Amino acid sequence: MNHSKERIGVLTSGGDAPGMNAAIRAVVRSCVYYGITPFGIAQGYEGLINNDIFQMDAGSVKHIIHQGGTILKSARSLEFKTEEGMQKAWKNVQEHGLDGLVVIGGDGTFKGAMEFGEKFSFPIIGIPGTIDNDIYGTDFTVGFDTAVNTVVEAVDKIRDTATSHNRLFFIEVMGRDAGFIAMYSGIGAGAEEVLIPEKDRDVERLYESLEQTSQRKKSSRLVIVAEGDKNGSVYDLEREVKQRFGDRYETKVTILGHVQRGGRPSCTDRVLASRLGVTSVEALRDGKGGFMVGVRNRKIRFTDFDNATKRNPEMDQELMRVADIISI
Amino acid sequence: MNHSKERIGVLTSGGDAPGMNAAIRAVVRSCVYYGITPFGIAQGYEGLINNDIFQMDAGSVKHIIHQGGTILKSARSLEFKTEEGMQKAWKNVQEHGLDGLVVIGGDGTFKGAMEFGEKFSFPIIGIPGTIDNDIYGTDFTVGFDTAVNTVVEAVDKIRDTATSHNRLFFIEVMGRDAGFIAMYSGIGAGAEEVLIPEKDRDVERLYESLEQTSQRKKSSRLVIVAEGDKNGSVYDLEREVKQRFGDRYETKVTILGHVQRGGRPSCTDRVLASRLGVTSVEALRDGKGGFMVGVRNRKIRFTDFDNATKRNPEMDQELMRVADIISI
Amino acid sequence: MNHSKERIGVLTSGGDAPGMNAAIRAVVRSCVYYGITPFGIAQGYEGLINNDIFQMDAGSVKHIIHQGGTILKSARSLEFKTEEGMQKAWKNVQEHGLDGLVVIGGDGTFKGAMEFGEKFSFPIIGIPGTIDNDIYGTDFTVGFDTAVNTVVEAVDKIRDTATSHNRLFFIEVMGRDAGFIAMYSGIGAGAEEVLIPEKDRDVERLYESLEQTSQRKKSSRLVIVAEGDKNGSVYDLEREVKQRFGDRYETKVTILGHVQRGGRPSCTDRVLASRLGVTSVEALRDGKGGFMVGVRNRKIRFTDFDNATKRNPEMDQELMRVADIISI
Amino acid sequence: MNHSKERIGVLTSGGDAPGMNAAIRAVVRSCVYYGITPFGIAQGYEGLINNDIFQMDAGSVKHIIHQGGTILKSARSLEFKTEEGMQKAWKNVQEHGLDGLVVIGGDGTFKGAMEFGEKFSFPIIGIPGTIDNDIYGTDFTVGFDTAVNTVVEAVDKIRDTATSHNRLFFIEVMGRDAGFIAMYSGIGAGAEEVLIPEKDRDVERLYESLEQTSQRKKSSRLVIVAEGDKNGSVYDLEREVKQRFGDRYETKVTILGHVQRGGRPSCTDRVLASRLGVTSVEALRDGKGGFMVGVRNRKIRFTDFDNATKRNPEMDQELMRVADIISI
Repeated sequence: MNHSKERIGVLTSGGDAPGMNAAIRAVVRSCVYYGITPFGIAQGYEGLINNDIFQMDAGSVKHIIHQGGTILKSARSLEFKTEEGMQKAWKNVQEHGLDGLVVIGGDGTFKGAMEFGEKFSFPIIGIPGTIDNDIYGTDFTVGFDTAVNTVVEAVDKIRDTATSHNRLFFIEVMGRDAGFIAMYSGIGAGAEEVLIPEKDRDVERLYESLEQTSQRKKSSRLVIVAEGDKNGSVYDLEREVKQRFGDRYETKVTILGHVQRGGRPSCTDRVLASRLGVTSVEALRDGKGGFMVGVRNRKIRFTDFDNATKRNPEMDQELMRVADIISI
Repeated sequence: MNHSKERIGVLTSGGDAPGMNAAIRAVVRSCVYYGITPFGIAQGYEGLINNDIFQMDAGSVKHIIHQGGTILKSARSLEFKTEEGMQKAWKNVQEHGLDGLVVIGGDGTFKGAMEFGEKFSFPIIGIPGTIDNDIYGTDFTVGFDTAVNTVVEAVDKIRDTATSHNRLFFIEVMGRDAGFIAMYSGIGAGAEEVLIPEKDRDVERLYESLEQTSQRKKSSRLVIVAEGDKNGSVYDLEREVKQRFGDRYETKVTILGHVQRGGRPSCTDRVLASRLGVTSVEALRDGKGGFMVGVRNRKIRFTDFDNATKRNPEMDQELMRVADIISI
Repeated sequence: MNHSKERIGVLTSGGDAPGMNAAIRAVVRSCVYYGITPFGIAQGYEGLINNDIFQMDAGSVKHIIHQGGTILKSARSLEFKTEEGMQKAWKNVQEHGLDGLVVIGGDGTFKGAMEFGEKFSFPIIGIPGTIDNDIYGTDFTVGFDTAVNTVVEAVDKIRDTATSHNRLFFIEVMGRDAGFIAMYSGIGAGAEEVLIPEKDRDVERLYESLEQTSQRKKSSRLVIVAEGDKNGSVYDLEREVKQRFGDRYETKVTILGHVQRGGRPSCTDRVLASRLGVTSVEALRDGKGGFMVGVRNRKIRFTDFDNATKRNPEMDQELMRVADIISI
Repeated sequence: MNHSKERIGVLTSGGDAPGMNAAIRAVVRSCVYYGITPFGIAQGYEGLINNDIFQMDAGSVKHIIHQGGTILKSARSLEFKTEEGMQKAWKNVQEHGLDGLVVIGGDGTFKGAMEFGEKFSFPIIGIPGTIDNDIYGTDFTVGFDTAVNTVVEAVDKIRDTATSHNRLFFIEVMGRDAGFIAMYSGIGAGAEEVLIPEKDRDVERLYESLEQTSQRKKSSRLVIVAEGDKNGSVYDLEREVKQRFGDRYETKVTILGHVQRGGRPSCTDRVLASRLGVTSVEALRDGKGGFMVGVRNRKIRFTDFDNATKRNPEMDQELMRVADIISI
């Protein structure tokens, strides 16, 4: 069932994530494969409003699969949330004769897509692209795997350093509302403690264990803290530890910050992005719209924007249990 | 249901894979967590036969989660296939009072485990550790993710080099019977062609496409070849291309070889290994044996050794389609 | 001229640095090569005091050349600065019959070596091992090259992220008294500004340039700040920028911290460490002592401890000029 | 002494090398800094002949410092060696009003530059850009440091794999006439043997040592072979070893090939490229030409093309001695 789409646009929006370029590449190449003309839109919804829309071809996405960031740039658009912004965007969509749109981003991106798509009965497919992995409807988001590898590599380096006694390394990682990066990288890096927004007694447990081990000879320990942890920033935590334990522990802080957003995407992120890119174009051809595409249990799966944005993926209980057992 | 295991052994066997150390670490730490004494066995089944068995504790697996290879060493054992070898191994198992065993490896490892376990009614749990991903009963094997990232990183570097016209890079990757490494890394690296044992017309397709493009101005192209491809080694292929196309193509060969087996394991491999390590100890505690543990659709799953060794995982058709579409 | 050394000790002291293991390996292997028995001393001068001294052989340094950190551990010793500590250490040196000592570390390490060596007329050779590159008498210290590569890799990732306008990334790097890490990594990473202790007008220049560019459309800019910069911590700087420029700039902070001390050493650091390790053993054999070995202008060079600790290497003026020209 | 250059061209020629982009960036930015208009020339001398010449500005070299390869592409040009080719190139140089040229490449590049420069009295400055480090007049060439790090990283991975007895890994690295890559990476990777074109008895020494060790229990050994070694290709060597030692050794081959040419340049290569890029523009401004710029003993140094192309840098004897001592 080919609904003869002839022109499809693609944009990246919100915080960027490694693998977005692989997704763009797959969207553009799938269009070419199916005889559709692909259009790039710069700076997310901003480009839709400002008419920063341009034709692409297979050559436009050459040698980008391995690059971090997004060649289409990404931005957050306040104007797109206004009636006026939406109207401007719609005018430009019509002017370029776009039949459909692929948006790559997170929650906010999909909310915008849902509203815009419903308002103008315009078919939009979403690809989950964010390092936070906080999107319902897909096992993993594009960018998450690369981000946790980046964190793990950094923590590996910290672990290398001379292990003097009772040294406490705090490493703050991204994840304002979701502790997925902290949990996965914490297990992967072999951290002694992982503090995440989803868990309650974390910090108490940390203090208890610090109380116990400060009495025995013990080497360095690594504590990974999600930036959204309810116990405040890593510096608040450091202050509290200093207050409670004085100089029984020497503390060191690392803030990885935007290092986590960049870097060459991992193979997993590239393959996931390629699959979702192809699927999104095929979905538009099939007349679909208003959905996010994801991969669950290794199969392609569609989730309507309403569910994708309202529901939250849950932290796997088994993982939290594994983390507890192997951090003894 | 705790069958009061008191002593559990762990070994790595067959070709080694990144993440094996993370699995060993999880097995040992889970034992400590559950009050079981863990024993390491060196050089796979060889160590069982030669009584190279030693007690471990949490300290034995410190700072190994990020190391490639296996601290227990790995080997292939011919003697373990003999009645005499099995008897020697059984004597040593009894001598050390082992109540159960965790074996980390591939097909051959599980066959040995099945025979030994059945012969002496001895509970053994297997963890799939091989870069080839060719084990039935798990979505991914420990080591696969790291291996494809290693390949992709190498191919990224090749792509960097000056793109003169009609240059043909052949990159041989591991996978004697299974094209998973080639297929995933081929998609991830954006290779123009992927030649795998599972597909028939591959090489014809390659020649056709070379025929067409040699007439147009075209930049370099990358061809990933699984070492088990039926068209022979990458050098056979190069010879054939030279014969058919003369100097219309300049060919370059890379043989990654054992580079693919090493390296720091990826976060994904470490998390998978940790989950399976914990599970295998818990399975032995629950009185289970004769099974391989894997993860399918994000959930832990048990597969009896018979199925794990006789059946083969199938290459995902959707992936092969994606590869075709985006390599245009 | 062989002074028939029979037993040589080696230790690492102070902040650890990548490549220390390669130096230890070269010392131990050179000893074996020359028929000398090598002894390892754990935890720097602490091990000398606590008699944590043990015989090594070629096997002790197998598979360590590529590992960050130091297998001998490192520590700072207050006790070694006391008469009592020195006497204890000397007793242990005599007890093990050591004829000479190689110490790997920085300024503080060499000061201790000088005092100890002069007090007991004991030959000691120093190898400069510190990421800061702040040692007079060698072009580069062991660990510096790896550290700047680590910083550059992190900054490359930050550069990948979506370039929204007027975003200001502050990256704090190590170097309390010396701006070498900041200067080299700043040039290597293509940073727009580098703030180092050695320069005076840096921060004014930054404010001026921020004043100018906030008026034009401009993409992100990266500012590398040495932790010892006189303008205070990177957070002080961020506060000051916020005060001066309000929301004309969005600021983001990365604190790399101890990530810079770890990681696989670069080839350059391994080769340098190997050369210095061999040389230090040969120097002791030749009856030398009281010197640091370094490489200047590609040639081995000896600097007495007094000069090595009192003088400071100067930042190359040409480099600072290059940084200014290419950061336009 | 400003000779009021107004237009300077830059090209990359010959085999590409990591860091070429950093050099291009420095040339372009230095031009902008000095009020000169920079021109890029595509595909080396081919672009000069085919008039593939275009104006550049600071924006043209944005975000390229960390990319492998060369944005100007590189090629070998046969036509440039002919009178006709030279005339065409000269016509295009005049047409664009170029006052000077910076060429980045190796031996062949400089020979072409010398001939062209002398024929038309046209000032050309050369920057040594090649992974082989085989250029007289500079301590290191742009790209060498990255290439040896790439090799070392690959060998580190091979070392990770299970150490069964008497396994022999042959790793072929680039360096047709010069063994610098093999020697440096051999020391850095801790290889047991390094076979280079500069040494004579290498292979005999290898056989002797294989003869001795096949009798004792011994783990894997790594042999690095420069592709230009007089004993033939790594496969010839493997065949010879099989013939001499039968199955006493299990051999494994890795051919890194063009993997060595790519990848993110190291900090050292970027800093070197930046220094030479700035210097080359300043040299043209000063009225210089017919020289290669290099860094010797940390200082900028000029070498006329005649010397740069006719003389060969010598392998450091001390390095070869270090390699022998620590590979015991």
